[in-house]
Amino acid sequence: MLTQTESQQRVFRLQEMLTNKDVHAALLVLPIDIYYFTGTRQNAILWIPANGQPLLLVRKSLSRAKEESPIAAIRPFPSSKEFASVFSEEYINIGMTFDAVPVQQHTYYSRALQGRTFVDISMMIREVMSVKSPFELEQLRYSASKLASVFAEVPQFLKAGMRELDLSVEMEYRLRKAGHEGYIRMRAFNQELFFGLAVSSGGVNGGFFDGPVTGKGLSSASPHGASYDVIQVNQPILMDYVGVFNGYIADMTRMFVIGALDPELQRAFDVAIDIQEMVRQAMKPGAICEELFLAAASMAEQAGLGSCFMGMPGEQAKFVGHGVGLELDQLPVLAKGFAVPLLANQVIAVEPKFVIPGKGVIGIENTFVVTDEGGIRLSDFSDEIVFLEG
Amino acid sequence: MLTQTESQQRVFRLQEMLTNKDVHAALLVLPIDIYYFTGTRQNAILWIPANGQPLLLVRKSLSRAKEESPIAAIRPFPSSKEFASVFSEEYINIGMTFDAVPVQQHTYYSRALQGRTFVDISMMIREVMSVKSPFELEQLRYSASKLASVFAEVPQFLKAGMRELDLSVEMEYRLRKAGHEGYIRMRAFNQELFFGLAVSSGGVNGGFFDGPVTGKGLSSASPHGASYDVIQVNQPILMDYVGVFNGYIADMTRMFVIGALDPELQRAFDVAIDIQEMVRQAMKPGAICEELFLAAASMAEQAGLGSCFMGMPGEQAKFVGHGVGLELDQLPVLAKGFAVPLLANQVIAVEPKFVIPGKGVIGIENTFVVTDEGGIRLSDFSDEIVFLEG
Repeated sequence: MLTQTESQQRVFRLQEMLTNKDVHAALLVLPIDIYYFTGTRQNAILWIPANGQPLLLVRKSLSRAKEESPIAAIRPFPSSKEFASVFSEEYINIGMTFDAVPVQQHTYYSRALQGRTFVDISMMIREVMSVKSPFELEQLRYSASKLASVFAEVPQFLKAGMRELDLSVEMEYRLRKAGHEGYIRMRAFNQELFFGLAVSSGGVNGGFFDGPVTGKGLSSASPHGASYDVIQVNQPILMDYVGVFNGYIADMTRMFVIGALDPELQRAFDVAIDIQEMVRQAMKPGAICEELFLAAASMAEQAGLGSCFMGMPGEQAKFVGHGVGLELDQLPVLAKGFAVPLLANQVIAVEPKFVIPGKGVIGIENTFVVTDEGGIRLSDFSDEIVFLEG
Repeated sequence: MLTQTESQQRVFRLQEMLTNKDVHAALLVLPIDIYYFTGTRQNAILWIPANGQPLLLVRKSLSRAKEESPIAAIRPFPSSKEFASVFSEEYINIGMTFDAVPVQQHTYYSRALQGRTFVDISMMIREVMSVKSPFELEQLRYSASKLASVFAEVPQFLKAGMRELDLSVEMEYRLRKAGHEGYIRMRAFNQELFFGLAVSSGGVNGGFFDGPVTGKGLSSASPHGASYDVIQVNQPILMDYVGVFNGYIADMTRMFVIGALDPELQRAFDVAIDIQEMVRQAMKPGAICEELFLAAASMAEQAGLGSCFMGMPGEQAKFVGHGVGLELDQLPVLAKGFAVPLLANQVIAVEPKFVIPGKGVIGIENTFVVTDEGGIRLSDFSDEIVFLEG
């Protein structure tokens, strides 16, 4: 449960930014934005003035929102006639998250609040959410430890001859039994993810997903993740799963092999480990996101693996790490174009990976907290490739 | 795989509507809209002129889009400088689905195509998608039969003393093994769904979801569906699951009881069956959506169950059926305010349900095709409550 103190601290951090940018109030309509500030994910909108108390207006369920949220002012959603009267006319510049809010929603509120100017505060909200409180770090450590405990069981159920799908389903089953909430929130338009990926030979595929590894998926309608392909011996098997507990997301990848691994893949794995360690050491407040990516790409290049770093040649993802929290794709992004400094207590999944045509996919992923001592792992779990007998 | 003929037929139906409304072209950016017309779900946009051939512009993965789609013109996504030159200046009125497209996307394309007028074609696209072809009906029957075959296994794993979560996970495991694709597409802003619901005592809860039954869920971040509550004897256990195979969605609810059922709940169940049969008989082309809902609500009222029809008192959903296809919330909607006629080969999940405080949740759901003979079920599976020994 979100405490009143923590809710107020989050609201206050946003209010400072609103004031700095001369935005008079935020009108939040995306469920996860509202959850972050209020602790309840109901069908509602949240009004946060630059000065003053937030107001939560609830379509459904009002009773549940009141039970769950420490916000003082929680009221039923007003009719379209009453809507404008709820908000004082002194608020002219209204912030909204244009990255995720559909045009129809924007139009509805623009008409309901005629004469106001709506401005995009997507990056502002994402910046606030990127820095985690001690409570959030505790939640994230819990998610990571739950996720790791299920990864530890993989040798019990991974067998040659099973389909990638069967492997994924065994993982999903155990994650859910442990309390995984299932639905994975992503902010980016056009992205969809179900649990994660279990890919072997099927890993070397193009795909829509903005990540290094795609997988073949089950059909053209679901072209991502595990496929019906049968897992063979002497292949790299990449398992990349997201753990969602109490809304908080940890992200983790480990490699498994039944039998022996091609030496070229082993070498690529060792490079991935080296890149992860370089990034980890550099993950201090003030480090520039873009520079971490460029340093990682340069290490891949020097190892002769530049063309297959972070994706198959020609379809490479342009990042090596992404923020996680209540969404899988939070700030910061360790990517080209992000010439911004890291902040203390941001949480980042670092995932150097290689996709080598004709050989397979390989890499590592752990979630780290940005601190003065560099990145600190959310959970301890060996990075080593797990070799099973064929 | 989508055939070229079927792709062309779908495009042609949209082109007729565009022409009728004087919209010169559709610019589709929502993945499922694009998948419907092209048969590929990659990161892309689709241009469909009112006259002429569609053009698919692909960010990622171009190779996969070409492999999967029968569309003739598939090209790499143009740079922002080149963008305008791809589209002839004769196209002024451009249609976009404002219901689902974020403001930032709309802004990007408005700037890239300056001087054009963007108009909302959400309802047009949804109408095209609502009428199913023989190929689509076959896909939906397949999804419904797979879903029913897993429902048939419930008596093997449902036990008193297990958590609602455990029951849901056993269902999810079997659905996935059968090829369920996991991710459930919904069009409405603000909605999220993971597989479905297994609810017993926890069913009588408020919630954000726009459906009759909510469930307690696992946390305030995930306040929907199965909870950690333990399943008891002599309680109604409602299982409402979505089957997604090759992208196509069937929806189904059945009731289970370990031991005996409260006579009031049995009576409410019988009313739900009567309502379903009334709606089924009326599901002919030309029938008015709203009238079907009003007739259903009236039957509930006459049975003295008006205040708990389609939700707990005060939080009742205002529909009795919803279209399904590539999304869970397609047209038509059997709801107040939808004074439009049914069309042949629309596919509708009909779900009369009651939420009775202090007693529990109960109801039925099947997916039907609209025909001249009334609704025809996608799959045969007994509606009866399954009683298990305590």
